[in-house]
Amino acid sequence: MGNHVVCFGELLLRLTAPGRELLLQSGRLDVHVGGAEANVAIGLARLGHQAAMVSRVPAGPLGEAAIGHLRRHGVDVSGVGTAAGRMGLYFLSFGAGVRASDIVYDREGSAFARAGAGDFAWPALLDGADLLHLSGVTAALGPDSAAAALAAAEAAAARGIAVSFDGNYRAQLWNAWGSDPRAVLTRLVGTAEIMFGNHRDISLLLGREFSGDGEARRREAADAAFAAFPKLRLIASTARHVVDADTHRIAARVDAREGSVQTEEVSVAGIVDRIGAGDAFAAGVLHGLRSGLDLEGIARSGLALTCLKHSLPGDASLFTQRDIDAFNAGERDVRR
Amino acid sequence: MGNHVVCFGELLLRLTAPGRELLLQSGRLDVHVGGAEANVAIGLARLGHQAAMVSRVPAGPLGEAAIGHLRRHGVDVSGVGTAAGRMGLYFLSFGAGVRASDIVYDREGSAFARAGAGDFAWPALLDGADLLHLSGVTAALGPDSAAAALAAAEAAAARGIAVSFDGNYRAQLWNAWGSDPRAVLTRLVGTAEIMFGNHRDISLLLGREFSGDGEARRREAADAAFAAFPKLRLIASTARHVVDADTHRIAARVDAREGSVQTEEVSVAGIVDRIGAGDAFAAGVLHGLRSGLDLEGIARSGLALTCLKHSLPGDASLFTQRDIDAFNAGERDVRR
Amino acid sequence: MGNHVVCFGELLLRLTAPGRELLLQSGRLDVHVGGAEANVAIGLARLGHQAAMVSRVPAGPLGEAAIGHLRRHGVDVSGVGTAAGRMGLYFLSFGAGVRASDIVYDREGSAFARAGAGDFAWPALLDGADLLHLSGVTAALGPDSAAAALAAAEAAAARGIAVSFDGNYRAQLWNAWGSDPRAVLTRLVGTAEIMFGNHRDISLLLGREFSGDGEARRREAADAAFAAFPKLRLIASTARHVVDADTHRIAARVDAREGSVQTEEVSVAGIVDRIGAGDAFAAGVLHGLRSGLDLEGIARSGLALTCLKHSLPGDASLFTQRDIDAFNAGERDVRR
Amino acid sequence: MGNHVVCFGELLLRLTAPGRELLLQSGRLDVHVGGAEANVAIGLARLGHQAAMVSRVPAGPLGEAAIGHLRRHGVDVSGVGTAAGRMGLYFLSFGAGVRASDIVYDREGSAFARAGAGDFAWPALLDGADLLHLSGVTAALGPDSAAAALAAAEAAAARGIAVSFDGNYRAQLWNAWGSDPRAVLTRLVGTAEIMFGNHRDISLLLGREFSGDGEARRREAADAAFAAFPKLRLIASTARHVVDADTHRIAARVDAREGSVQTEEVSVAGIVDRIGAGDAFAAGVLHGLRSGLDLEGIARSGLALTCLKHSLPGDASLFTQRDIDAFNAGERDVRR
Amino acid sequence: MGNHVVCFGELLLRLTAPGRELLLQSGRLDVHVGGAEANVAIGLARLGHQAAMVSRVPAGPLGEAAIGHLRRHGVDVSGVGTAAGRMGLYFLSFGAGVRASDIVYDREGSAFARAGAGDFAWPALLDGADLLHLSGVTAALGPDSAAAALAAAEAAAARGIAVSFDGNYRAQLWNAWGSDPRAVLTRLVGTAEIMFGNHRDISLLLGREFSGDGEARRREAADAAFAAFPKLRLIASTARHVVDADTHRIAARVDAREGSVQTEEVSVAGIVDRIGAGDAFAAGVLHGLRSGLDLEGIARSGLALTCLKHSLPGDASLFTQRDIDAFNAGERDVRR
Amino acid sequence: MGNHVVCFGELLLRLTAPGRELLLQSGRLDVHVGGAEANVAIGLARLGHQAAMVSRVPAGPLGEAAIGHLRRHGVDVSGVGTAAGRMGLYFLSFGAGVRASDIVYDREGSAFARAGAGDFAWPALLDGADLLHLSGVTAALGPDSAAAALAAAEAAAARGIAVSFDGNYRAQLWNAWGSDPRAVLTRLVGTAEIMFGNHRDISLLLGREFSGDGEARRREAADAAFAAFPKLRLIASTARHVVDADTHRIAARVDAREGSVQTEEVSVAGIVDRIGAGDAFAAGVLHGLRSGLDLEGIARSGLALTCLKHSLPGDASLFTQRDIDAFNAGERDVRR
Repeated sequence: MGNHVVCFGELLLRLTAPGRELLLQSGRLDVHVGGAEANVAIGLARLGHQAAMVSRVPAGPLGEAAIGHLRRHGVDVSGVGTAAGRMGLYFLSFGAGVRASDIVYDREGSAFARAGAGDFAWPALLDGADLLHLSGVTAALGPDSAAAALAAAEAAAARGIAVSFDGNYRAQLWNAWGSDPRAVLTRLVGTAEIMFGNHRDISLLLGREFSGDGEARRREAADAAFAAFPKLRLIASTARHVVDADTHRIAARVDAREGSVQTEEVSVAGIVDRIGAGDAFAAGVLHGLRSGLDLEGIARSGLALTCLKHSLPGDASLFTQRDIDAFNAGERDVRR
Repeated sequence: MGNHVVCFGELLLRLTAPGRELLLQSGRLDVHVGGAEANVAIGLARLGHQAAMVSRVPAGPLGEAAIGHLRRHGVDVSGVGTAAGRMGLYFLSFGAGVRASDIVYDREGSAFARAGAGDFAWPALLDGADLLHLSGVTAALGPDSAAAALAAAEAAAARGIAVSFDGNYRAQLWNAWGSDPRAVLTRLVGTAEIMFGNHRDISLLLGREFSGDGEARRREAADAAFAAFPKLRLIASTARHVVDADTHRIAARVDAREGSVQTEEVSVAGIVDRIGAGDAFAAGVLHGLRSGLDLEGIARSGLALTCLKHSLPGDASLFTQRDIDAFNAGERDVRR
Repeated sequence: MGNHVVCFGELLLRLTAPGRELLLQSGRLDVHVGGAEANVAIGLARLGHQAAMVSRVPAGPLGEAAIGHLRRHGVDVSGVGTAAGRMGLYFLSFGAGVRASDIVYDREGSAFARAGAGDFAWPALLDGADLLHLSGVTAALGPDSAAAALAAAEAAAARGIAVSFDGNYRAQLWNAWGSDPRAVLTRLVGTAEIMFGNHRDISLLLGREFSGDGEARRREAADAAFAAFPKLRLIASTARHVVDADTHRIAARVDAREGSVQTEEVSVAGIVDRIGAGDAFAAGVLHGLRSGLDLEGIARSGLALTCLKHSLPGDASLFTQRDIDAFNAGERDVRR
Repeated sequence: MGNHVVCFGELLLRLTAPGRELLLQSGRLDVHVGGAEANVAIGLARLGHQAAMVSRVPAGPLGEAAIGHLRRHGVDVSGVGTAAGRMGLYFLSFGAGVRASDIVYDREGSAFARAGAGDFAWPALLDGADLLHLSGVTAALGPDSAAAALAAAEAAAARGIAVSFDGNYRAQLWNAWGSDPRAVLTRLVGTAEIMFGNHRDISLLLGREFSGDGEARRREAADAAFAAFPKLRLIASTARHVVDADTHRIAARVDAREGSVQTEEVSVAGIVDRIGAGDAFAAGVLHGLRSGLDLEGIARSGLALTCLKHSLPGDASLFTQRDIDAFNAGERDVRR
Repeated sequence: MGNHVVCFGELLLRLTAPGRELLLQSGRLDVHVGGAEANVAIGLARLGHQAAMVSRVPAGPLGEAAIGHLRRHGVDVSGVGTAAGRMGLYFLSFGAGVRASDIVYDREGSAFARAGAGDFAWPALLDGADLLHLSGVTAALGPDSAAAALAAAEAAAARGIAVSFDGNYRAQLWNAWGSDPRAVLTRLVGTAEIMFGNHRDISLLLGREFSGDGEARRREAADAAFAAFPKLRLIASTARHVVDADTHRIAARVDAREGSVQTEEVSVAGIVDRIGAGDAFAAGVLHGLRSGLDLEGIARSGLALTCLKHSLPGDASLFTQRDIDAFNAGERDVRR
Repeated sequence: MGNHVVCFGELLLRLTAPGRELLLQSGRLDVHVGGAEANVAIGLARLGHQAAMVSRVPAGPLGEAAIGHLRRHGVDVSGVGTAAGRMGLYFLSFGAGVRASDIVYDREGSAFARAGAGDFAWPALLDGADLLHLSGVTAALGPDSAAAALAAAEAAAARGIAVSFDGNYRAQLWNAWGSDPRAVLTRLVGTAEIMFGNHRDISLLLGREFSGDGEARRREAADAAFAAFPKLRLIASTARHVVDADTHRIAARVDAREGSVQTEEVSVAGIVDRIGAGDAFAAGVLHGLRSGLDLEGIARSGLALTCLKHSLPGDASLFTQRDIDAFNAGERDVRR
């Protein structure tokens, strides 16, 4: 490894009702491995980047399965240790048409959530890395996890390793403990060069609203963020219009200090699995960035990967450059 | 039990080709429990109402499975006895796009169809009930079943228990024996306070056409029905525009003697299972009624449940108030 | 048999990733029997025509399964012998939404591809037949297969048996050997009374472009083909607009020497399985032709069968006249 | 066809609980095509014999699936017409260990059971045949079916076509109507050259017990049968010792007027599907007979096919001579 | 309800690897509802007894599924409330041959385990009951659960309601907290009239070994237990010899103060699902007891149900008296 | 990596009929990754050893899936490149009871079989390795593969890296080309320190029979082999008695120059998947050897892993030391 991306976060097992059934309507569950940062790691590895995961799982077949899944797709898992605690789980039933999908989390007491800042050997885990990716979900799990996230981000920053941060704001998790999300997130974003989030995330960070509408508002928010966070050089987000559970329309936006790109809206119909679409966007943006593309290319790379993700069962994007090219070329019929 | 709804009708097993295959294209069938009135009973029980089923099934695992399914979802099945005869079956292959779904009935000689008026202990089976729900399918099964339906409805009416009647007109069943559907249905509707049916059903009952179009025609038909059937106080129906097998547009309408409500049309795309959508509408309307909602609320409750039903495998609505609220709030993306 | 259709070509096994998974994302494959000409044979047999297949498969369970599938659906398989070589395979993952379907061919060294002109007992295999159907895929497999296709077509022509030829141009296959596709296809089309192909296929055959657009260009191309190929009396094609993997719009066109019919465009949404749609079109056109329909009827028969095919898992159309009638009557809801 | 075997009887669909579940413990059923005589027809066709089925099924997908299954395996189905009535069904849950398998029949009112002697065009259906196979199950279905069985058997006998009769005594079916099984069966056996049945079947036919034990009793019974039925030339039976649901021990016996063969007992463990084992025995015996084997060879052929059947899901033997040879050679490990 | 059995304990979901795979070897899990006392409740309800469950589950689809399963099989669930906490889970991979089955528990923090003595409305929950069944697993979950178990048992004893106690000793659970299992279990057994346990359980309770062997040792232990626990009147146990994962040999034993019965050993081969076999034994013994059988009958009833359980997927016995009779009659082949 | 095992051979996909069906009896196949040497690599990696694979697969999803499977289980796949050619396949139907399992190979033209000695960068691929494992299957694939196998073995020998060679004699493969198996195998064994094979393999190598029986004959053969091949220091083999498809009895034997160990015979019943049992034996022996066990320990380690493998779906052993310990401790019941 070397010049690689380190992703830090929880590994989860997703247990999904088959077809479009409600949970346990019949007695079968399909299992996929997930976790926001793991999805990014897999998405990057499938695109040919070196990616390494840092996490904790319980010893035994559940943790091993999660590790094995990452390894199968080419992620370095030498930083995923075992620890006391459960495997984090979540249960999912897919919606259809006018019915929304539904998630039941069961991640309390997980091996990862029980780990604190001292359980990870930063900065050694960053040896050779040039990017650390993490997300706000980790910080929201509880005070120990928040401290662990900060320790990771600050270790990277101290070493001059770029930090990529995906807000992934989950009010429900933050509200479950006596947290001050703004304080924690402000410190985390302060370490970041790349932030995934839109004007609402920035409002939350800066404690102010942005009044314009559409692209103007988004640019205004980006400017405010760039002003508040001197290390920040790229803000990426999607705008999603939910028609129904099976059809969304999605546009991608990337803001740099100089210049912005906002793509046209793509209609994503026939949605198979919308989970992890945000992580696929992050992977696509990082892919574009690490491939040396310009802002337009970065935005299109993120757009392609997030749109494609909706067509694929499981939490992570497994697509390759060939799939991104086919998407960009408008190929929608059978490739022979 | 007490102040509960009694549903009277046949229990059926549905045997469905998997995926969108034709029947027995491959050698697997998925089994669900159905029957118009049973679907209403389950739909109501899942929404927190007390519901009891009265029916007949054969002794043995098939009948037991049907009973167990109702019990699982909270329906009182003490009124479902065993009797000589078969289990009523039907075979279903789902259509897709431009191909319609297809049903092969196999309900001849069923334990329920063989039972006559004397086989059910009316009025004792209505003890504590304040509503009896039944449908025209039962009356259409043959002279014995027609008599049984009449006996039930008239026992309720005699006791002052409200009758809810869903027309469910099936020409094929009525034509299979020397029946006079108009005579039978007129007697049944004569006992009813609530009728599920549209202007075409009313035309059939009254032997006249309604010439206007759209809402005017529907109101004219309702007025005629209210005039002809003095006990009737509510008529509920849906208007369904079939785009293709996967996309329908649906509006709900409720007519009272004073006032009508017709909702806007909802586009229901990505249809998973359209069977039982009419029964879900009935359950939703009865739910609204029993929850004390106004006409608008009743119509919206019926609309929500019938629209949601299209997203769910199986014959019956399993939705709760939380799902109706989410539908009404326009939630279509993942609920976390 | 007698007055029957002989179809000549390869039998293939299709191995498909379940759901919308990528190939081997999980460890299961669904198997269907395919092959362009076999699909036409099955499509015709299901519509009540006598159809016979001529092919080669390896001895053993894979070849037997392919033969058994054709036999199940009523195709005469006395002309399908066993020979040295493999079973031709292809692997398929279905796309969804913005992701295209993907095919991996694995047909090299197949028993059929290894067979040459001398391995088939023409013209005896045509005894009693009044139509031979074959396609350009066979000719593209290699020099032996090209010779075998020519031998078949010329034996039919010599006997006064009509030849139906589906271009099915696959550049990838033709490019894999030192082929002269135009020379081979010209000889094949020269034997044909019926050709499936559009203006692009005709351009390839005649070495010229057609400059008009829409219907005018198509007619101009048809006129040129009729001029170049004196035996030709019918050219049939579809125009397909791919919205995304789940929704296509399709129109059918039939050109005779006197007159053309082009149908309106049908929106085919909720696509279940697009593979074999072209073969279903051919079967539908031949069905119309053999049923004595006029040009309009022939075009509509082809359109119906190709549209319906998109709703059905597997490579071949299994539909009957009842399904075509339902399609034409606009039936899209449940048929009870 | 010519010199072929005609099998006359009902076609059934078997609906089986998956794994070793009870019926409808979960909502899935696996479907196989069965029927005692159809099983024999398939068993023979797979072994390379010409076999034709005569039966009645309802029009529609269920009947077509049954016909298609026979056709897939090479049985001539031109004698299987459609008629009014249902598809005969039966439901099966497999036992395991100390739990017996359980069957729920649902064949009342089937198209076949409703057909009478006049519905089958005997003797024309026997053109070119040299053997008619039928069983006591048909005669037990009711007076019409009994008459139909007699008409078939007597038409064959009148034409000099050998009759093969499998007793398949089912007290439950005979008792369901005012039947005289002994009278009917005596007439049927009176037409037969080959009978499948043991000393208990013969006791029933002749109204007497056989007192010896083991082989002596079986021979005494055979002698009595040969004395009572002058056309009879071969009696074949198995002796089955049921250890538990997964392990049986089976020996085969064949009695001719001159000489008997009784094989050693084979331990059949790891039973996958015991249904149709008797029909596989009949097919194996007829295979041996038609292949010109001696008594020993006939008995071994029957033994091999019935033992092998226990390893195969579905009602009919699909084995070939290669499988019989492997069984006889003691091959039990992987064949590569 | 009335004269019914109350079962008190945790409801669990079992997530099982399909076939004989290791956990998450492939991405599918089969789900069944379990829990030692729930299994007894279901086993009794299926045998026609009135059974009611008292427990706690989390609100939401997982808890509802568990409740629905019990309700499906006829258990009164009015005593199963919702509470804060998780759904208790366990993961299972079935062994085969020389490989043992393997369980991963994931029940920490469950709604039931978090509930204490004060969360259950004893003695009101016992209204009308004449038997309370509970097990040592509950007491082993932690101090709160131990207190809850004691509160239940002592409430029953105080009311003169018989207590049935199944030791189910799990060292792993007891060792996880600062427990004194002997003290807790002694108090619980002190309330019991019926105890499920063998000489090893009694040794643990009384702190002494029993030196004889075989039946003598078991009787000596029983005598000691009867001496130590004056309320005790029946001790029931099985002796299990594990040949391999697929074959066990089992005998049942019942000790009363006067007299003992020990059955012969039954070979249970072809094991499908060994989980819950002890609970099925308890249900069978209680069934015999409540049916008024003598000691021999009680032992045979327990033996039958535990042996049968090994043939059935899922945690609970679903068998009826008809199945017990078939077992006792030695029926092992197909029942038609 | 370092001090690791390099395994050199073909990667295959196995396509298996589900349940105990014949191939394509129904339209589903289960896919596993196999190949003799890959199975050894996975078996070793799961036991904690460093293992690296050297092979060739085609580019695309099939090759990637094979690589991903090895990576999932911890095998270093940096030596598995892509090359022109197909993915090697084989089709499997599992036998049951008296029916043997059946394999149809489809590996002609595979990317690995097309590769020759020059396509692998020996000796660089052995950097850091201390053991090379390969098998006679590779050498049997054709002259290029034989040369590739010899090049690998001789490169290792030249570097002083131990060679482990598994005979895996497949007459069918050797006979398919003008091969001299004895010459090739003699050269290969000449490089080996460890050989997997029994007295029949040694007879083939040395061109002589060994007349004694049982252990004496095996020792005599081992002595002859040690005399003929000076580098050889360990010969390991199993003796397998096939009772039927579900039950085998297996003993393990290890011969060193000084001393032999032959274990008792273990009855392996309830066989789930016998494929790869020989490779599991090799992995178990190498595990014992690399763990520093004595001859007895080595033999027991091999015996444990091969016996356990029969319980597990798929080609490779996935067991850990914990499973071997449980096997050796006689654990056969549920581990909680």
